[in-house]
Amino acid sequence: MTSDGSSDLDKYLKQNDSRIREELFEFLRIPSVSARSEHNADTARAADWLKQSMEKAGMKATIHPTSGHPIVIGEWRNAPGAPTVLVYGHYDVQPAEPIDLWTSPPFEPEIRDGKIYGRGSVDDKGQLFLHIKAIEAHLATRKRLPLNIVLLAEGEEEVGSANLEEFVEANQDLLKADVAVISDSSMFAPGIPSILSSLRGLAYFQIDVQGPKCDLHSGSYGGAVVNPATALARIVATFHDENGHIAIEGFYDNVRVWESRILDQMKKLPFDEGNFLEETGSPALGGEKGYTILEQLWARPTCEVNGLLSGYTGEGAKTVLPAKAMAKVSCRLVPDQDPADIERLMDAHIEKVAPKGVTVTVKHLHGGRPWRAELDGPIFDAARRALKKAFDREAVIVGEGGSIPVVGDFQRILGMPVLLVGFGLPGENAHAPDEWMSEDNFRKGMIAMAALWDEYGQNGKP
Amino acid sequence: MTSDGSSDLDKYLKQNDSRIREELFEFLRIPSVSARSEHNADTARAADWLKQSMEKAGMKATIHPTSGHPIVIGEWRNAPGAPTVLVYGHYDVQPAEPIDLWTSPPFEPEIRDGKIYGRGSVDDKGQLFLHIKAIEAHLATRKRLPLNIVLLAEGEEEVGSANLEEFVEANQDLLKADVAVISDSSMFAPGIPSILSSLRGLAYFQIDVQGPKCDLHSGSYGGAVVNPATALARIVATFHDENGHIAIEGFYDNVRVWESRILDQMKKLPFDEGNFLEETGSPALGGEKGYTILEQLWARPTCEVNGLLSGYTGEGAKTVLPAKAMAKVSCRLVPDQDPADIERLMDAHIEKVAPKGVTVTVKHLHGGRPWRAELDGPIFDAARRALKKAFDREAVIVGEGGSIPVVGDFQRILGMPVLLVGFGLPGENAHAPDEWMSEDNFRKGMIAMAALWDEYGQNGKP
Repeated sequence: MTSDGSSDLDKYLKQNDSRIREELFEFLRIPSVSARSEHNADTARAADWLKQSMEKAGMKATIHPTSGHPIVIGEWRNAPGAPTVLVYGHYDVQPAEPIDLWTSPPFEPEIRDGKIYGRGSVDDKGQLFLHIKAIEAHLATRKRLPLNIVLLAEGEEEVGSANLEEFVEANQDLLKADVAVISDSSMFAPGIPSILSSLRGLAYFQIDVQGPKCDLHSGSYGGAVVNPATALARIVATFHDENGHIAIEGFYDNVRVWESRILDQMKKLPFDEGNFLEETGSPALGGEKGYTILEQLWARPTCEVNGLLSGYTGEGAKTVLPAKAMAKVSCRLVPDQDPADIERLMDAHIEKVAPKGVTVTVKHLHGGRPWRAELDGPIFDAARRALKKAFDREAVIVGEGGSIPVVGDFQRILGMPVLLVGFGLPGENAHAPDEWMSEDNFRKGMIAMAALWDEYGQNGKP
Repeated sequence: MTSDGSSDLDKYLKQNDSRIREELFEFLRIPSVSARSEHNADTARAADWLKQSMEKAGMKATIHPTSGHPIVIGEWRNAPGAPTVLVYGHYDVQPAEPIDLWTSPPFEPEIRDGKIYGRGSVDDKGQLFLHIKAIEAHLATRKRLPLNIVLLAEGEEEVGSANLEEFVEANQDLLKADVAVISDSSMFAPGIPSILSSLRGLAYFQIDVQGPKCDLHSGSYGGAVVNPATALARIVATFHDENGHIAIEGFYDNVRVWESRILDQMKKLPFDEGNFLEETGSPALGGEKGYTILEQLWARPTCEVNGLLSGYTGEGAKTVLPAKAMAKVSCRLVPDQDPADIERLMDAHIEKVAPKGVTVTVKHLHGGRPWRAELDGPIFDAARRALKKAFDREAVIVGEGGSIPVVGDFQRILGMPVLLVGFGLPGENAHAPDEWMSEDNFRKGMIAMAALWDEYGQNGKP
């Protein structure tokens, strides 16, 4: 079968376009917010919905309970002798708050200007669902796939994938494959298909500062009692020096310098700083001095405050000396930083800088390793051809500032290469109000993935 | 009349002790909670009760409606040529909730172990009522007072005295006096009569830091976009140096050094640092180095964070780069700092330290001037003698870290010195369940205030 042989698949996808969209909307309507226990029933409902959707596509589907949210597995294994691929996605979504900043309600998907708006549209329900539909195209059209597929959908990606590693460890036979494919990332720009070569890891902390036993009157006690909010601010202020360099001792010890062929290609990417600035809406860019923005985003680690809370935060003035203060802080990591090392370094740093008069505790909320792809081999060649077919343009190699912890787990536990090919776009508001996915990318993603199985099934035999 | 001349007053108060206590209990039984509109009828009833009580004491009494709760005025002006005093108190009380933490019901006063328990017992009904009874002692025993008295009782102290300043402005003739006397504070310790010599002022700010236009994914943008929460923490960290000294340029320029006679006396006060630490529940005390705790609380200004809010503050981890961050910050001021100056200095400081890449705005939420008593003059001499007579011990001079805005209003609008002499005690639970006033202090307060009019009437003629 040639790379043009998938026109029957394209036709199927085109003919079923509106039904497919309606099914996607059904999926997006389920508020499967993994972080919120009040949504546990919704998250379970999303897993059931997914199982039925896999079955409708022609796969065998099973739900695997975990101590958190279940894992859904779809399988089609009727191509003996052909390679096996493991496709990963997640059906849980980020919390939708602040709800009032959404133009349309987060769980009532709506298309405006070619964008599918809704929580999870691009991260990751839309990208998971396009894989199911690419498989369905094969099985509905030809009654078979040119390779074997195992589709793993987890429900805890947005809360740290706490049970995934254990599941992967315990189910190595079920998940055995020649290669893993993940679509949970973005293209470099509209129309430019992209293969992801690196991910940052994560070490997420909660810092709790306890001062007096209860909120005190700031007049009667202020000046003599150490203020936990001030103490917290002073701790956070020690994380960086005046050049945006992270000032935690030993933090950069294991940062690997990128190969020049990747850096050179990165410098040729059509990156527009002005657009990026406008996209963020920031008054000016910042970050670590001496690095380009793409290096800051892809090749350098960070230490970011994700949340702050202390004392009185309502309207007007209340003269309270708060009893406690809290910060959520997370470090993005790059190869070869290890989250466990960073946790130790952060603990040691906090111990060093914590002022007297307050009690500071650091919780390690979760961690994930950074990752770098090996960019040679049959799956990458097949992906380049499939992407060119769908988008009519050569794919570029990009980095990613975010984390997909499962990538490291797959590579480490299952010993397989991982192809990261995503169909999001810059500015898609993943994790923010008005999350969207390009409708065009949703369609081309299905076409590209359907074509990938042809390309890899034909050329990727191990 | 000598300072022993008031034994007839003491005798009257002793003979009428149980009747006076029963009248106080009547007053305490009225739930005049100014913050709760469902208690508006009770608050009005308290004003009526007070008017009748003033009349029974021999004063002329009038009720002055405001747009909130009424002001009650009692007058006795039959000592031509003698000085006039303005006595201030308030008949409204804090809400009693949480009711279930009271040992006896908040509005059913009860004496246990020499303490009069009940909402308002010390703040401020008990202290207001003891003034009425001191006046009654004079008028019942001698048919006259040695000076002229105007008693002002407001019903909105616990909700910010919204109508008092306007009333004072509009009734300067009615309130014209040589001196104001306020009993709405505490003694330093049991048995130690105290004259309050200072109050701290306030400059309250809200600092808003705006970064990107909306919350961003901390992976996709972190490292290149300036984080407003980090920026806010770095700003807050510039407020103090490593010794707890406020590092805002010019902040201390107008701080008046306390006279050594006051400082020396302050150092002799029986202050127990261990008790204070236990009362706060802090792991250790802190604050500005080189100053005692009482200096930190009374004589030194502060810059305290009252609240912090940014990004994700819920359960677990959310990898958000927040769009904005907010801090509520208030400075307690000491003479001769001016809140308007401090506002300008804070604005200039923030402008100097605000990092690029975020927009920082500062709102001035409110301000109040600090206050220092002139501790010389006939009213203070008279108060020292009267307190010594009642408590058989020299009065001490104490400070107060909080603010009583009416003091500034009296001094500014009416141009008179203010004597702050209170009969509360540490731990009296004002604003909390099980509020109490020492029965002994209630008795000695009446004796002291009755004696004060003799002492001041004799020696204070303007």
